[in-house]
Amino acid sequence: MPDSLPHVITSLQNPQVKRLVRLRTRRERERDGVMLIEGARELMRAESAGVTVPELFVCPELFSPEARELFPEVTGATELSRAAFEKVSGRENPDGVLGVAPLPAPRLPQPGDDTVVVVLHGLEKPGNVGAILRTADAAGAAGVLVLGRGADPYGPNVIRASQGAVFSVPTAVLGEDAALGWLAEHNFRTVACTPDAPADYWDTPLTGRVALLLGTEHAGLPAEWRAAHQAVRVPMHGQADSLNVATAAALVLYEALRQRRPADA
Amino acid sequence: MPDSLPHVITSLQNPQVKRLVRLRTRRERERDGVMLIEGARELMRAESAGVTVPELFVCPELFSPEARELFPEVTGATELSRAAFEKVSGRENPDGVLGVAPLPAPRLPQPGDDTVVVVLHGLEKPGNVGAILRTADAAGAAGVLVLGRGADPYGPNVIRASQGAVFSVPTAVLGEDAALGWLAEHNFRTVACTPDAPADYWDTPLTGRVALLLGTEHAGLPAEWRAAHQAVRVPMHGQADSLNVATAAALVLYEALRQRRPADA
Repeated sequence: MPDSLPHVITSLQNPQVKRLVRLRTRRERERDGVMLIEGARELMRAESAGVTVPELFVCPELFSPEARELFPEVTGATELSRAAFEKVSGRENPDGVLGVAPLPAPRLPQPGDDTVVVVLHGLEKPGNVGAILRTADAAGAAGVLVLGRGADPYGPNVIRASQGAVFSVPTAVLGEDAALGWLAEHNFRTVACTPDAPADYWDTPLTGRVALLLGTEHAGLPAEWRAAHQAVRVPMHGQADSLNVATAAALVLYEALRQRRPADA
Repeated sequence: MPDSLPHVITSLQNPQVKRLVRLRTRRERERDGVMLIEGARELMRAESAGVTVPELFVCPELFSPEARELFPEVTGATELSRAAFEKVSGRENPDGVLGVAPLPAPRLPQPGDDTVVVVLHGLEKPGNVGAILRTADAAGAAGVLVLGRGADPYGPNVIRASQGAVFSVPTAVLGEDAALGWLAEHNFRTVACTPDAPADYWDTPLTGRVALLLGTEHAGLPAEWRAAHQAVRVPMHGQADSLNVATAAALVLYEALRQRRPADA
Protein backbone atom coordinates (compact mmCIF):
# COMPACT_ATOMS: atom_id res chain seq x y z
CA MET A 1 0.00 0.00 0.00
CA PRO A 2 1.52 3.39 -0.96
CA ASP A 3 2.42 5.59 1.97
CA SER A 4 0.44 8.53 0.60
CA LEU A 5 -2.94 6.89 1.18
CA PRO A 6 -4.72 8.00 4.35
CA HIS A 7 -4.38 5.30 6.94
CA VAL A 8 -7.52 3.21 7.15
CA ILE A 9 -7.62 0.06 9.23
CA THR A 10 -8.95 -2.69 7.01
CA SER A 11 -7.58 -5.86 8.57
CA LEU A 12 -9.93 -7.71 10.89
CA GLN A 13 -6.79 -9.01 12.59
CA ASN A 14 -5.56 -5.51 13.40
CA PRO A 15 -4.80 -5.24 17.15
CA GLN A 16 -7.08 -2.21 17.57
CA VAL A 17 -9.96 -4.06 15.91
CA LYS A 18 -9.34 -7.08 18.10
CA ARG A 19 -9.24 -4.89 21.21
CA LEU A 20 -12.56 -3.20 20.35
CA VAL A 21 -14.18 -6.60 19.84
CA ARG A 22 -12.78 -7.75 23.19
CA LEU A 23 -14.19 -4.63 24.89
CA ARG A 24 -17.71 -5.68 24.03
CA THR A 25 -17.43 -7.94 27.09
CA ARG A 26 -18.10 -6.32 30.45
CA ARG A 27 -15.21 -8.08 32.15
CA GLU A 28 -12.76 -6.84 29.55
CA ARG A 29 -14.06 -3.28 29.82
CA GLU A 30 -13.72 -3.38 33.59
CA ARG A 31 -10.22 -4.84 33.31
CA ASP A 32 -9.20 -1.96 31.05
CA GLY A 33 -11.27 0.58 33.00
CA VAL A 34 -13.13 1.82 29.93
CA MET A 35 -16.57 1.99 28.39
CA LEU A 36 -17.65 1.82 24.74
CA ILE A 37 -19.88 4.61 23.53
CA GLU A 38 -21.39 3.81 20.16
CA GLY A 39 -23.47 6.16 18.07
CA ALA A 40 -23.30 9.85 17.20
CA ARG A 41 -26.14 10.80 19.50
CA GLU A 42 -24.74 8.86 22.44
CA LEU A 43 -21.32 10.45 21.98
CA MET A 44 -22.82 13.93 21.85
CA ARG A 45 -24.73 13.24 25.04
CA ALA A 46 -21.59 11.98 26.74
CA GLU A 47 -19.75 15.12 25.68
CA SER A 48 -22.60 17.35 26.91
CA ALA A 49 -22.31 15.64 30.28
CA GLY A 50 -18.60 16.39 30.42
CA VAL A 51 -17.31 12.91 29.51
CA THR A 52 -13.93 13.00 27.74
CA VAL A 53 -13.66 10.51 24.88
CA PRO A 54 -9.97 10.15 24.08
CA GLU A 55 -10.35 7.51 21.38
CA LEU A 56 -12.73 7.90 18.48
CA PHE A 57 -13.20 5.38 15.65
CA VAL A 58 -15.15 6.26 12.54
CA CYS A 59 -16.28 4.80 9.25
CA PRO A 60 -17.54 7.68 7.07
CA GLU A 61 -19.03 5.19 4.60
CA LEU A 62 -21.46 4.11 7.34
CA PHE A 63 -22.29 7.61 8.61
CA SER A 64 -25.95 8.29 9.29
CA PRO A 65 -27.16 11.81 8.42
CA GLU A 66 -26.94 12.57 12.13
CA ALA A 67 -23.37 11.28 12.36
CA ARG A 68 -22.39 13.35 9.33
CA GLU A 69 -23.94 16.43 10.89
CA LEU A 70 -22.43 15.92 14.33
CA PHE A 71 -19.01 14.77 13.11
CA PRO A 72 -18.39 16.84 9.98
CA GLU A 73 -14.65 16.64 10.53
CA VAL A 74 -13.07 13.60 12.01
CA THR A 75 -9.59 14.86 12.76
CA GLY A 76 -7.92 12.80 15.40
CA ALA A 77 -10.20 9.85 14.79
CA THR A 78 -9.06 6.45 13.62
CA GLU A 79 -10.75 5.40 10.42
CA LEU A 80 -11.94 1.82 9.97
CA SER A 81 -13.06 0.12 6.80
CA ARG A 82 -16.70 -0.86 6.60
CA ALA A 83 -15.93 -4.51 7.32
CA ALA A 84 -13.74 -3.60 10.28
CA PHE A 85 -16.32 -1.21 11.72
CA GLU A 86 -19.11 -3.74 11.34
CA LYS A 87 -16.96 -6.24 13.19
CA VAL A 88 -16.43 -3.96 16.20
CA SER A 89 -19.95 -2.53 16.27
CA GLY A 90 -22.60 -3.88 18.64
CA ARG A 91 -25.43 -2.65 16.43
CA GLU A 92 -27.35 -4.09 13.55
CA ASN A 93 -27.12 -0.83 11.63
CA PRO A 94 -24.05 1.02 12.88
CA ASP A 95 -23.86 4.75 12.20
CA GLY A 96 -20.09 4.75 11.85
CA VAL A 97 -19.04 6.37 15.13
CA LEU A 98 -17.61 4.62 18.20
CA GLY A 99 -15.68 6.00 21.16
CA VAL A 100 -13.69 4.54 24.01
CA ALA A 101 -13.73 6.53 27.24
CA PRO A 102 -12.49 5.92 30.78
CA LEU A 103 -15.06 4.17 32.98
CA PRO A 104 -16.49 6.91 35.22
CA ALA A 105 -15.67 6.71 38.92
CA PRO A 106 -18.67 5.73 41.05
CA ARG A 107 -20.61 8.86 41.94
CA LEU A 108 -22.76 8.74 45.06
CA PRO A 109 -25.79 11.03 45.19
CA GLN A 110 -25.56 14.30 47.11
CA PRO A 111 -27.98 13.86 50.03
CA GLY A 112 -30.12 16.96 50.46
CA ASP A 113 -33.26 17.64 52.49
CA ASP A 114 -35.71 16.19 50.03
CA THR A 115 -33.61 13.75 48.06
CA VAL A 116 -34.83 10.73 46.10
CA VAL A 117 -32.41 7.99 45.09
CA VAL A 118 -33.16 4.81 43.19
CA VAL A 119 -31.62 1.49 44.23
CA LEU A 120 -31.63 -1.26 41.59
CA HIS A 121 -31.12 -4.76 42.92
CA GLY A 122 -29.79 -7.06 40.22
CA LEU A 123 -31.86 -5.84 37.27
CA GLU A 124 -30.86 -7.89 34.26
CA LYS A 125 -32.27 -6.16 31.22
CA PRO A 126 -30.15 -3.28 29.90
CA GLY A 127 -33.29 -1.70 28.43
CA ASN A 128 -34.88 -1.50 31.87
CA VAL A 129 -31.79 -0.10 33.59
CA GLY A 130 -31.42 2.47 30.82
CA ALA A 131 -35.10 3.44 30.95
CA ILE A 132 -34.91 3.89 34.73
CA LEU A 133 -31.82 6.10 34.41
CA ARG A 134 -33.63 8.21 31.81
CA THR A 135 -36.70 8.58 34.03
CA ALA A 136 -34.58 9.25 37.13
CA ASP A 137 -33.01 12.12 35.20
CA ALA A 138 -36.39 13.52 34.14
CA ALA A 139 -37.84 13.16 37.63
CA GLY A 140 -34.87 14.95 39.20
CA ALA A 141 -33.67 12.00 41.27
CA ALA A 142 -30.32 12.58 42.98
CA GLY A 143 -28.80 9.34 41.78
CA VAL A 144 -29.02 5.64 41.10
CA LEU A 145 -27.28 2.89 43.07
CA VAL A 146 -26.77 -0.32 41.10
CA LEU A 147 -26.37 -3.48 43.20
CA GLY A 148 -25.32 -6.96 42.27
CA ARG A 149 -24.19 -8.41 38.96
CA GLY A 150 -27.13 -7.42 36.85
CA ALA A 151 -26.87 -5.31 33.70
CA ASP A 152 -23.73 -3.18 33.48
CA PRO A 153 -24.93 0.44 33.73
CA TYR A 154 -22.03 1.40 31.45
CA GLY A 155 -22.79 -1.27 28.88
CA PRO A 156 -23.58 -0.06 25.35
CA ASN A 157 -27.26 -1.02 25.54
CA VAL A 158 -27.81 0.78 28.84
CA ILE A 159 -26.04 3.87 27.49
CA ARG A 160 -28.31 3.79 24.48
CA ALA A 161 -31.57 3.17 26.37
CA SER A 162 -30.72 5.81 28.98
CA GLN A 163 -30.44 8.43 26.21
CA GLY A 164 -27.23 9.53 27.87
CA ALA A 165 -28.74 9.92 31.35
CA VAL A 166 -26.14 7.46 32.67
CA PHE A 167 -23.59 10.24 32.05
CA SER A 168 -25.53 12.95 33.86
CA VAL A 169 -27.29 11.16 36.74
CA PRO A 170 -24.87 10.23 39.57
CA THR A 171 -24.54 6.46 39.31
CA ALA A 172 -22.63 4.04 41.50
CA VAL A 173 -22.20 0.28 41.24
CA LEU A 174 -21.68 -1.04 44.75
CA GLY A 175 -22.16 -3.99 47.07
CA GLU A 176 -25.31 -4.59 49.07
CA ASP A 177 -23.73 -3.90 52.45
CA ALA A 178 -22.03 -0.73 51.23
CA ALA A 179 -25.33 0.51 49.79
CA LEU A 180 -27.36 -0.24 52.90
CA GLY A 181 -24.63 1.30 55.06
CA TRP A 182 -24.55 4.49 53.00
CA LEU A 183 -28.35 4.82 53.05
CA ALA A 184 -28.50 4.28 56.84
CA GLU A 185 -25.62 6.66 57.50
CA HIS A 186 -27.43 9.41 55.61
CA ASN A 187 -30.81 8.67 57.20
CA PHE A 188 -32.60 7.63 54.03
CA ARG A 189 -36.00 6.06 54.50
CA THR A 190 -36.05 2.91 52.36
CA VAL A 191 -39.19 2.16 50.36
CA ALA A 192 -39.41 -1.27 48.75
CA CYS A 193 -41.48 -1.39 45.54
CA THR A 194 -42.98 -4.85 45.47
CA PRO A 195 -46.28 -6.27 44.21
CA ASP A 196 -47.14 -7.88 47.57
CA ALA A 197 -46.89 -4.64 49.57
CA PRO A 198 -49.90 -3.68 51.71
CA ALA A 199 -50.07 -0.02 50.62
CA ASP A 200 -50.56 1.68 47.26
CA TYR A 201 -47.65 3.93 46.36
CA TRP A 202 -49.83 7.02 46.18
CA ASP A 203 -51.03 6.54 49.76
CA THR A 204 -47.51 6.45 51.16
CA PRO A 205 -45.52 9.56 52.11
CA LEU A 206 -42.50 9.74 49.83
CA THR A 207 -41.07 13.08 50.97
CA GLY A 208 -37.80 13.67 52.78
CA ARG A 209 -34.78 11.49 52.05
CA VAL A 210 -36.20 8.47 50.29
CA ALA A 211 -34.52 5.49 48.63
CA LEU A 212 -36.77 3.57 46.23
CA LEU A 213 -35.75 -0.10 46.07
CA LEU A 214 -36.51 -2.09 42.91
CA GLY A 215 -35.80 -5.78 42.31
CA THR A 216 -35.22 -8.03 39.34
CA GLU A 217 -37.68 -8.49 36.51
CA HIS A 218 -38.57 -12.04 37.56
CA ALA A 219 -37.95 -12.48 41.27
CA GLY A 220 -38.41 -8.95 42.58
CA LEU A 221 -36.55 -7.93 45.72
CA PRO A 222 -34.93 -10.50 48.01
CA ALA A 223 -36.80 -11.04 51.28
CA GLU A 224 -34.32 -9.12 53.41
CA TRP A 225 -34.67 -6.08 51.16
CA ARG A 226 -38.43 -6.10 51.48
CA ALA A 227 -37.89 -5.49 55.20
CA ALA A 228 -37.47 -1.82 54.33
CA HIS A 229 -38.97 1.04 56.28
CA GLN A 230 -41.96 0.85 53.99
CA ALA A 231 -43.24 -1.26 51.14
CA VAL A 232 -45.45 0.03 48.37
CA ARG A 233 -47.19 -1.56 45.43
CA VAL A 234 -48.54 -0.28 42.17
CA PRO A 235 -52.17 -1.41 42.03
CA MET A 236 -53.01 -3.59 39.02
CA HIS A 237 -56.39 -4.09 37.45
CA GLY A 238 -55.65 -6.09 34.34
CA GLN A 239 -55.05 -9.59 33.12
CA ALA A 240 -51.29 -9.31 32.90
CA ASP A 241 -49.48 -10.36 36.03
CA SER A 242 -47.10 -7.48 36.35
CA LEU A 243 -46.01 -4.09 35.20
CA ASN A 244 -42.64 -3.62 33.63
CA VAL A 245 -40.13 -2.70 36.38
CA ALA A 246 -39.12 0.50 34.57
CA THR A 247 -42.79 1.53 34.41
CA ALA A 248 -43.23 0.85 38.13
CA ALA A 249 -40.09 2.88 38.84
CA ALA A 250 -41.41 5.81 36.80
CA LEU A 251 -44.72 5.79 38.66
CA VAL A 252 -43.15 5.82 42.12
CA LEU A 253 -40.46 8.38 41.14
CA TYR A 254 -43.08 10.76 39.78
CA GLU A 255 -45.33 10.23 42.79
CA ALA A 256 -42.39 11.29 44.96
CA LEU A 257 -42.07 14.37 42.75
CA ARG A 258 -45.81 15.06 42.92
CA GLN A 259 -45.69 14.97 46.71
CA ARG A 260 -42.86 17.52 46.59
CA ARG A 261 -44.64 20.04 44.37
CA PRO A 262 -45.27 23.48 45.84
CA ALA A 263 -48.61 23.70 47.65
CA ASP A 264 -51.45 25.23 45.64
CA ALA A 265 -51.52 29.02 45.87
CA MET B 1 -38.41 -40.61 1.81
CA PRO B 2 -40.36 -43.57 3.21
CA ASP B 3 -44.03 -42.98 3.79
CA SER B 4 -43.85 -44.16 7.40
CA LEU B 5 -41.90 -41.11 8.59
CA PRO B 6 -43.99 -38.42 10.28
CA HIS B 7 -44.53 -35.55 7.91
CA VAL B 8 -42.09 -32.76 8.61
CA ILE B 9 -41.83 -29.78 6.29
CA THR B 10 -38.18 -29.39 5.41
CA SER B 11 -38.23 -27.56 2.08
CA LEU B 12 -37.77 -23.80 2.26
CA GLN B 13 -39.75 -23.69 -0.99
CA ASN B 14 -42.77 -25.36 0.60
CA PRO B 15 -45.90 -23.23 0.01
CA GLN B 16 -46.70 -23.10 3.73
CA VAL B 17 -43.20 -21.88 4.55
CA LYS B 18 -43.42 -19.27 1.82
CA ARG B 19 -46.80 -18.13 3.09
CA LEU B 20 -45.53 -17.73 6.67
CA VAL B 21 -42.60 -15.67 5.42
CA ARG B 22 -44.99 -13.51 3.39
CA LEU B 23 -47.15 -12.98 6.50
CA ARG B 24 -44.33 -11.23 8.27
CA THR B 25 -45.39 -8.16 6.25
CA ARG B 26 -48.30 -6.17 7.66
CA ARG B 27 -49.93 -5.68 4.28
CA GLU B 28 -49.93 -9.41 3.62
CA ARG B 29 -51.39 -10.15 7.05
CA GLU B 30 -54.13 -7.61 6.50
CA ARG B 31 -54.84 -9.00 3.03
CA ASP B 32 -55.27 -12.47 4.50
CA GLY B 33 -57.00 -11.12 7.63
CA VAL B 34 -54.63 -12.90 10.03
CA MET B 35 -52.00 -12.24 12.65
CA LEU B 36 -48.86 -14.18 13.52
CA ILE B 37 -48.43 -15.13 17.16
CA GLU B 38 -44.93 -16.36 17.85
CA GLY B 39 -43.74 -17.80 21.13
CA ALA B 40 -45.16 -20.20 23.69
CA ARG B 41 -45.92 -17.49 26.22
CA GLU B 42 -47.61 -15.25 23.66
CA LEU B 43 -49.76 -18.14 22.42
CA MET B 44 -50.82 -19.01 25.96
CA ARG B 45 -51.77 -15.39 26.58
CA ALA B 46 -53.79 -15.30 23.38
CA GLU B 47 -55.59 -18.47 24.40
CA SER B 48 -56.29 -17.09 27.89
CA ALA B 49 -57.87 -14.06 26.25
CA GLY B 50 -60.15 -16.27 24.16
CA VAL B 51 -58.27 -16.04 20.86
CA THR B 52 -58.67 -19.13 18.68
CA VAL B 53 -55.48 -20.17 16.91
CA PRO B 54 -56.50 -22.56 14.13
CA GLU B 55 -53.02 -23.05 12.69
CA LEU B 56 -50.06 -24.05 14.83
CA PHE B 57 -46.51 -24.64 13.56
CA VAL B 58 -43.88 -26.23 15.76
CA CYS B 59 -40.27 -27.29 15.72
CA PRO B 60 -39.67 -29.49 18.79
CA GLU B 61 -35.92 -29.32 18.24
CA LEU B 62 -36.08 -25.57 18.98
CA PHE B 63 -38.46 -25.84 21.97
CA SER B 64 -37.55 -23.70 24.96
CA PRO B 65 -38.23 -25.30 28.36
CA GLU B 66 -41.35 -23.13 28.50
CA ALA B 67 -42.52 -24.27 25.08
CA ARG B 68 -41.96 -27.90 26.08
CA GLU B 69 -43.97 -27.38 29.24
CA LEU B 70 -46.82 -25.51 27.58
CA PHE B 71 -46.98 -27.66 24.45
CA PRO B 72 -46.19 -31.17 25.70
CA GLU B 73 -48.21 -32.70 22.90
CA VAL B 74 -48.39 -31.11 19.53
CA THR B 75 -51.25 -32.98 17.96
CA GLY B 76 -52.81 -31.03 15.16
CA ALA B 77 -49.72 -28.91 14.69
CA THR B 78 -47.63 -28.81 11.55
CA GLU B 79 -44.02 -29.69 12.18
CA LEU B 80 -41.24 -27.75 10.51
CA SER B 81 -37.58 -28.63 10.31
CA ARG B 82 -35.19 -26.38 12.17
CA ALA B 83 -34.11 -24.60 8.98
CA ALA B 84 -37.71 -24.09 7.89
CA PHE B 85 -38.77 -22.78 11.28
CA GLU B 86 -35.83 -20.41 11.48
CA LYS B 87 -36.81 -19.09 8.07
CA VAL B 88 -40.38 -18.26 9.13
CA SER B 89 -39.50 -16.99 12.60
CA GLY B 90 -39.17 -13.29 13.33
CA ARG B 91 -36.94 -13.91 16.33
CA GLU B 92 -33.25 -14.29 16.84
CA ASN B 93 -33.76 -17.25 19.14
CA PRO B 94 -37.08 -18.84 18.21
CA ASP B 95 -38.68 -21.12 20.80
CA GLY B 96 -40.24 -23.38 18.18
CA VAL B 97 -43.91 -22.34 18.38
CA LEU B 98 -45.80 -20.13 15.93
CA GLY B 99 -49.51 -19.69 15.37
CA VAL B 100 -51.68 -18.05 12.74
CA ALA B 101 -54.98 -16.64 13.97
CA PRO B 102 -57.72 -14.50 12.45
CA LEU B 103 -57.11 -10.77 12.85
CA PRO B 104 -59.46 -9.66 15.64
CA ALA B 105 -62.32 -7.38 14.67
CA PRO B 106 -61.84 -3.82 15.92
CA ARG B 107 -63.21 -3.56 19.45
CA LEU B 108 -64.30 -0.14 20.66
CA PRO B 109 -64.17 0.51 24.40
CA GLN B 110 -67.36 0.26 26.44
CA PRO B 111 -68.02 3.82 27.61
CA GLY B 112 -68.98 3.86 31.29
CA ASP B 113 -69.26 6.66 33.84
CA ASP B 114 -65.61 6.88 34.70
CA THR B 115 -63.90 5.47 31.63
CA VAL B 116 -60.35 6.12 30.47
CA VAL B 117 -59.34 5.35 26.91
CA VAL B 118 -55.94 5.85 25.28
CA VAL B 119 -55.63 7.28 21.78
CA LEU B 120 -52.32 6.67 20.00
CA HIS B 121 -51.62 8.94 17.07
CA GLY B 122 -49.13 7.38 14.67
CA LEU B 123 -46.74 5.81 17.19
CA GLU B 124 -44.02 4.07 15.23
CA LYS B 125 -42.15 1.87 17.65
CA PRO B 126 -43.76 -1.51 18.31
CA GLY B 127 -42.09 -1.60 21.73
CA ASN B 128 -43.85 1.61 22.76
CA VAL B 129 -47.27 0.54 21.47
CA GLY B 130 -46.87 -2.81 23.23
CA ALA B 131 -45.73 -1.20 26.49
CA ILE B 132 -48.70 1.18 26.43
CA LEU B 133 -51.13 -1.70 25.86
CA ARG B 134 -49.58 -3.55 28.80
CA THR B 135 -49.87 -0.50 31.07
CA ALA B 136 -53.41 0.26 29.85
CA ASP B 137 -54.35 -3.26 30.91
CA ALA B 138 -52.74 -2.85 34.35
CA ALA B 139 -54.31 0.58 34.88
CA GLY B 140 -57.76 -0.70 33.97
CA ALA B 141 -58.21 1.47 30.88
CA ALA B 142 -61.30 0.64 28.84
CA GLY B 143 -59.46 0.45 25.55
CA VAL B 144 -56.90 1.77 23.12
CA LEU B 145 -57.64 3.51 19.81
CA VAL B 146 -54.78 3.30 17.30
CA LEU B 147 -54.77 6.03 14.63
CA GLY B 148 -52.74 6.40 11.48
CA ARG B 149 -50.21 4.10 9.88
CA GLY B 150 -47.85 3.71 12.78
CA ALA B 151 -46.91 0.38 14.31
CA ASP B 152 -49.37 -2.43 13.64
CA PRO B 153 -50.92 -3.27 17.03
CA TYR B 154 -51.22 -6.87 15.84
CA GLY B 155 -47.63 -7.07 14.66
CA PRO B 156 -45.44 -9.72 16.30
CA ASN B 157 -43.31 -7.18 18.19
CA VAL B 158 -46.31 -5.38 19.63
CA ILE B 159 -47.86 -8.69 20.66
CA ARG B 160 -44.63 -9.59 22.41
CA ALA B 161 -44.08 -6.21 24.12
CA SER B 162 -47.72 -6.03 25.23
CA GLN B 163 -47.31 -9.33 27.09
CA GLY B 164 -50.60 -10.37 25.52
CA ALA B 165 -52.50 -7.25 26.61
CA VAL B 166 -53.37 -6.59 22.95
CA PHE B 167 -55.62 -9.66 23.18
CA SER B 168 -57.42 -8.58 26.36
CA VAL B 169 -57.64 -4.77 26.11
CA PRO B 170 -60.26 -3.62 23.57
CA THR B 171 -58.21 -2.25 20.68
CA ALA B 172 -59.36 -0.61 17.46
CA VAL B 173 -57.39 0.71 14.50
CA LEU B 174 -59.37 3.52 12.96
CA GLY B 175 -59.18 6.78 11.04
CA GLU B 176 -58.78 10.16 12.69
CA ASP B 177 -62.25 11.40 11.86
CA ALA B 178 -63.88 8.19 12.99
CA ALA B 179 -61.99 8.34 16.28
CA LEU B 180 -62.80 11.99 16.97
CA GLY B 181 -66.42 11.36 16.00
CA TRP B 182 -66.72 8.40 18.34
CA LEU B 183 -65.14 10.31 21.23
CA ALA B 184 -67.42 13.33 20.71
CA GLU B 185 -70.52 11.19 20.33
CA HIS B 186 -69.82 9.56 23.68
CA ASN B 187 -68.91 12.81 25.43
CA PHE B 188 -65.30 11.98 26.15
CA ARG B 189 -63.17 14.84 27.41
CA THR B 190 -59.96 14.78 25.33
CA VAL B 191 -56.68 15.35 27.13
CA ALA B 192 -53.61 15.92 24.95
CA CYS B 193 -50.33 14.80 26.52
CA THR B 194 -47.71 17.12 25.10
CA PRO B 195 -44.49 18.64 26.50
CA ASP B 196 -45.58 22.23 25.71
CA ALA B 197 -48.82 22.03 27.72
CA PRO B 198 -49.40 24.71 30.36
CA ALA B 199 -50.52 22.37 33.17
CA ASP B 200 -48.87 19.48 34.96
CA TYR B 201 -50.81 16.24 34.58
CA TRP B 202 -51.31 15.88 38.33
CA ASP B 203 -52.98 19.28 38.58
CA THR B 204 -55.59 18.44 35.93
CA PRO B 205 -58.84 16.63 36.71
CA LEU B 206 -58.79 13.30 34.88
CA THR B 207 -62.04 11.84 36.17
CA GLY B 208 -65.17 11.12 34.17
CA ARG B 209 -64.95 9.96 30.57
CA VAL B 210 -61.43 10.85 29.53
CA ALA B 211 -59.47 10.14 26.35
CA LEU B 212 -55.69 10.50 26.71
CA LEU B 213 -54.10 11.53 23.40
CA LEU B 214 -50.47 10.58 22.74
CA GLY B 215 -48.43 11.47 19.66
CA THR B 216 -45.41 10.08 17.85
CA GLU B 217 -42.02 9.59 19.43
CA HIS B 218 -40.44 12.44 17.46
CA ALA B 219 -43.09 14.93 16.44
CA GLY B 220 -45.67 14.52 19.19
CA LEU B 221 -49.29 15.28 18.40
CA PRO B 222 -50.29 17.21 15.27
CA ALA B 223 -51.39 20.80 15.99
CA GLU B 224 -55.09 20.12 15.49
CA TRP B 225 -54.97 17.31 18.04
CA ARG B 226 -53.43 19.55 20.64
CA ALA B 227 -56.60 21.62 20.44
CA ALA B 228 -58.13 19.11 22.81
CA HIS B 229 -60.32 19.99 25.77
CA GLN B 230 -57.20 20.02 27.89
CA ALA B 231 -53.46 19.65 27.47
CA VAL B 232 -51.17 18.27 30.13
CA ARG B 233 -47.44 17.84 30.41
CA VAL B 234 -45.20 15.66 32.49
CA PRO B 235 -42.78 18.01 34.26
CA MET B 236 -39.13 17.31 33.47
CA HIS B 237 -36.15 18.25 35.59
CA GLY B 238 -33.26 16.55 33.87
CA GLN B 239 -30.83 16.98 31.03
CA ALA B 240 -32.61 14.66 28.61
CA ASP B 241 -35.10 16.40 26.38
CA SER B 242 -37.99 14.04 26.74
CA LEU B 243 -39.52 11.11 28.49
CA ASN B 244 -40.26 7.97 26.57
CA VAL B 245 -43.86 8.15 25.28
CA ALA B 246 -44.78 4.88 26.98
CA THR B 247 -43.49 6.24 30.29
CA ALA B 248 -45.50 9.43 29.86
CA ALA B 249 -48.58 7.33 29.05
CA ALA B 250 -48.10 5.26 32.21
CA LEU B 251 -47.80 8.36 34.38
CA VAL B 252 -50.98 9.95 33.07
CA LEU B 253 -52.93 6.67 33.07
CA TYR B 254 -52.03 6.00 36.69
CA GLU B 255 -52.78 9.60 37.68
CA ALA B 256 -56.25 9.09 36.23
CA LEU B 257 -56.51 5.94 38.34
CA ARG B 258 -55.23 7.73 41.45
CA GLN B 259 -57.88 10.40 41.05
CA ARG B 260 -60.51 7.65 40.88
CA ARG B 261 -59.48 5.88 44.08
CA PRO B 262 -62.03 5.68 46.85
CA ALA B 263 -61.85 8.64 49.23
CA ASP B 264 -59.94 7.98 52.46
CA ALA B 265 -62.12 6.47 55.13
